[in-house]
Amino acid sequence: MDKISRNTRISIITKTLLDHPNRIISLNSFAERFGAAKSTISEDLVLVRDALEHFHEGRVETMAGASGGVKYLVEVPNSDRDRFLADFLMYLKDPSRIVPGNFLYVTDLMQNPRIMAKAGAILSACFQSLAPDYIITVETKGIPLAYEVARCLGVGLIVVRRNTKITEGTAVSINYLTGNQGMLSVMSLSKRSIRPNARLLFIDDFLRGGGTVRGIKDLLSEFESTLLGVGVMVDNKEIEKEIGVPLINFCDYYGIEESGKINIKPSKSIVQGLCGEKI
Amino acid sequence: MDKISRNTRISIITKTLLDHPNRIISLNSFAERFGAAKSTISEDLVLVRDALEHFHEGRVETMAGASGGVKYLVEVPNSDRDRFLADFLMYLKDPSRIVPGNFLYVTDLMQNPRIMAKAGAILSACFQSLAPDYIITVETKGIPLAYEVARCLGVGLIVVRRNTKITEGTAVSINYLTGNQGMLSVMSLSKRSIRPNARLLFIDDFLRGGGTVRGIKDLLSEFESTLLGVGVMVDNKEIEKEIGVPLINFCDYYGIEESGKINIKPSKSIVQGLCGEKI
Repeated sequence: MDKISRNTRISIITKTLLDHPNRIISLNSFAERFGAAKSTISEDLVLVRDALEHFHEGRVETMAGASGGVKYLVEVPNSDRDRFLADFLMYLKDPSRIVPGNFLYVTDLMQNPRIMAKAGAILSACFQSLAPDYIITVETKGIPLAYEVARCLGVGLIVVRRNTKITEGTAVSINYLTGNQGMLSVMSLSKRSIRPNARLLFIDDFLRGGGTVRGIKDLLSEFESTLLGVGVMVDNKEIEKEIGVPLINFCDYYGIEESGKINIKPSKSIVQGLCGEKI
Repeated sequence: MDKISRNTRISIITKTLLDHPNRIISLNSFAERFGAAKSTISEDLVLVRDALEHFHEGRVETMAGASGGVKYLVEVPNSDRDRFLADFLMYLKDPSRIVPGNFLYVTDLMQNPRIMAKAGAILSACFQSLAPDYIITVETKGIPLAYEVARCLGVGLIVVRRNTKITEGTAVSINYLTGNQGMLSVMSLSKRSIRPNARLLFIDDFLRGGGTVRGIKDLLSEFESTLLGVGVMVDNKEIEKEIGVPLINFCDYYGIEESGKINIKPSKSIVQGLCGEKI
């Protein structure tokens, strides 16, 4: 095997860590790949860890012992988060987003990987300390964001359906009241989706009246599982609600003014996170 | 500013490239971030490029000129792809996946970020040369895979709905025949989703009779846009079909035998790709 230089190892180690967030990677796997001693790999890892931490681009945790390895945890520099938040607000305030019925068209944003990759990384960093077993969302619009959070936290994604699908086998269905129109809706989840006693985070695009969150809680209780927290892009502040778990959202929405101006502000929760950074 | 070492720059440059696949990043942005000369950054980039290319972990293209920059293109080592394919087949062959009606339960696989991240990278590398403007899929199960392909190719994702949503504004709906049951279905897409004359790739979990692909083609013609190719995890070979565009799939499915054995094989298309690697 060619001798692999330190620069090469640093680049490939960085890529390998980023490709597998929140998963333990053994030092041996690097040592074998590079034909290098474990002590050399340890030195490389310190360099990668220091580089990422210096720029607040993530943390690298080392696990000692026979099964020794490292784990990459997603982090987003505050400056990146603030710039993202400013850009996202600017997109949302565009009056051409208002569609008949005074809804805001946000589908393009929720399906844009450039936006969702950053939003998912920021949310996952906020929720890392809760150590969820799964991310749960309701089809359709929130799936890319929920998927990104699941990927960054290294856990599975669960998508609740609006109706039962024959290809999913036995499913549990519940009725719930949707907050915005007080209508009775159905949500359904395959029995094989979740292992019992699981801890989950609910991720979605909009939080309106909180009806969907109450529905998710009811559904999870059928699976003997718990909702740990909620992360959304936008919380509709026109409707007062108490969801009973930590909520992190990017923006607070106060409706559309008579002048046609979209009244939306950055949320404090995304800056404070769960660890309460002062703003 | 502290002097930033080459090792640190190599790690952060690698992360920055990986975070923005298929997007041009200017040398200036690196030079400013590190307080280093552009000539130094150029040398760093050669080292990162050589490292990634040596391990077939991606390509780095350099754009000369005033707007000089670099672009990272996703690549997956053949050994990774082959191991992924073997693992995926093993998961699919598990008899407990058979649900009443002789359907295969694959939702857990299609929602597992560990699986979808790799599958999306492999598919995006296959389709890179077609340079699509968007990735399109039909709700719900294919969204994580389609999202990953869109992220790796640095383009937008478009999700076709099974029915019109009031929050999406004006939409175009078409009827189409689903291949498996010959039933008339509806698909719908917001008018503001696609810019005209766009080129798209359709990504989904299963390809059955090809009815959905024909529906997507019809729908895209309403947007004066073109389908370039199709990428799916599994192609049902029990049903003969001609979709008229390049198809890349991971597995060929031949149904469930009377013994209960799931008859499924690796597909040649994923190994040959669009550039025709011999197998």
